[in-house]
Amino acid sequence: MSIADDIALAHRLADAAGAAIRPHFRAVDAERKADASPVTDADRGAEEAMRRILAAEVPRDGITGEEFGYEKGESGRQWVLDPIDGTTAFLAGRPIFGILIALLHDGWPVLGMIDQPILKERWLGVTGQATTLNGQPVTTRACRELADAALATTGPHYFDDHDGAHFMGLAAKTDHKRMVMGGDCYNYAMLATGQIDVVCEANLKLHDWAALVPVVEGAGGTMCDWNGDPLHIDSDGHVLALGDPARLEDVVEALACHH
Amino acid sequence: MSIADDIALAHRLADAAGAAIRPHFRAVDAERKADASPVTDADRGAEEAMRRILAAEVPRDGITGEEFGYEKGESGRQWVLDPIDGTTAFLAGRPIFGILIALLHDGWPVLGMIDQPILKERWLGVTGQATTLNGQPVTTRACRELADAALATTGPHYFDDHDGAHFMGLAAKTDHKRMVMGGDCYNYAMLATGQIDVVCEANLKLHDWAALVPVVEGAGGTMCDWNGDPLHIDSDGHVLALGDPARLEDVVEALACHH
Repeated sequence: MSIADDIALAHRLADAAGAAIRPHFRAVDAERKADASPVTDADRGAEEAMRRILAAEVPRDGITGEEFGYEKGESGRQWVLDPIDGTTAFLAGRPIFGILIALLHDGWPVLGMIDQPILKERWLGVTGQATTLNGQPVTTRACRELADAALATTGPHYFDDHDGAHFMGLAAKTDHKRMVMGGDCYNYAMLATGQIDVVCEANLKLHDWAALVPVVEGAGGTMCDWNGDPLHIDSDGHVLALGDPARLEDVVEALACHH
Repeated sequence: MSIADDIALAHRLADAAGAAIRPHFRAVDAERKADASPVTDADRGAEEAMRRILAAEVPRDGITGEEFGYEKGESGRQWVLDPIDGTTAFLAGRPIFGILIALLHDGWPVLGMIDQPILKERWLGVTGQATTLNGQPVTTRACRELADAALATTGPHYFDDHDGAHFMGLAAKTDHKRMVMGGDCYNYAMLATGQIDVVCEANLKLHDWAALVPVVEGAGGTMCDWNGDPLHIDSDGHVLALGDPARLEDVVEALACHH
């Protein structure tokens, strides 16, 4: 397959996932599960729809999905799927969750897609290409001083006490008035679109971050762990995204402080 | 003026504010003010547009606006305007901020509008009428147990330490997996639409909450302060919204605990 074929396939995956998700948005009262887990019919239906397409079109590729686990392939290629990143946002009726699709070559994401199926916004990142939003190039913005940075994270309740103290060390060095909570993958999409400067999260799994890397890096940003080291397939879930890579040292230094 | 006239006027205000705001959304890099305050040209332009209409059509009514302060009227009626509630969300490129418009009669909101001008979602609440979203009735949902409740707040960094400890007391009694951060007025709109059960915030000003009351109450919910007492024009900014008024005692009791 050429990368153009892979891009076309990713679009078909996102189209199918979106079609499975849209009917359930804001129609979820019946889905309040007894186990209180925000796993919805939308989540499972969307991943099944994507797996059906992959099984038919690229049966030798591996698949990792949030809902249905890992299927080893034999091509050195692996699709990583998160049908609804931001299930709490979805359940709260907010149209800022996302479908995440990544293609890994030998364990490294070379294609990433963030799709918001209600707003019909789709970010595509491909190694060596400019990131696009609905086909138009987007870029991160410069951030000359960490004190001016807009920092985002999905919520402090996703940090343990130790990580939370380090996050607060970073938050104290950024612009308090611009800090936003909530957002999940949408924060990374906004960073790639020049609206946010830094995203800092913990406990992310491969399916949460793999698609973000080509999107952020193709827009001029950088992603790494909390030490500033590159992410890899077994990373421990501490993830940083910076719109302006020139601020990397400042961010890592601020995160190293407790607060 | 009849209430129908007031409703028509509120629609024209929201239309004018939205037209002033939309060109600035996601085009804000040049607006990174030296003083780091997230007050934008959009904010001021939208409030000016609304004030021009009010001055022409209802010159005897009072006006309170976030950007340009208080103009006393002589009719016993007062318009309360927040051109962009959720300026940090706006600056972060998230289409979940809102234009808030309230009409007070003798200090009490009898009409409230929450408008999301990017998504073109408009909630209207009028005392004694069912709340609508784009003209269609919406309602809050039942919440039989506080342990199942989805709780929302814009961010813990908006609480002081004392309020934060009480908020955590409430958070500990609700469904941790459903808690969402961020959202500003959009949380109240989602509560009125049956997607969220409880919103808890502090430091809200009259222009932040006045428009929310008719929207939430016309959808079957209730709004009050952290003691469960009614809000009034000089309330101290501690605001609760509940989709299911039957949970009021549970919520107030949980909030009374430190955590």
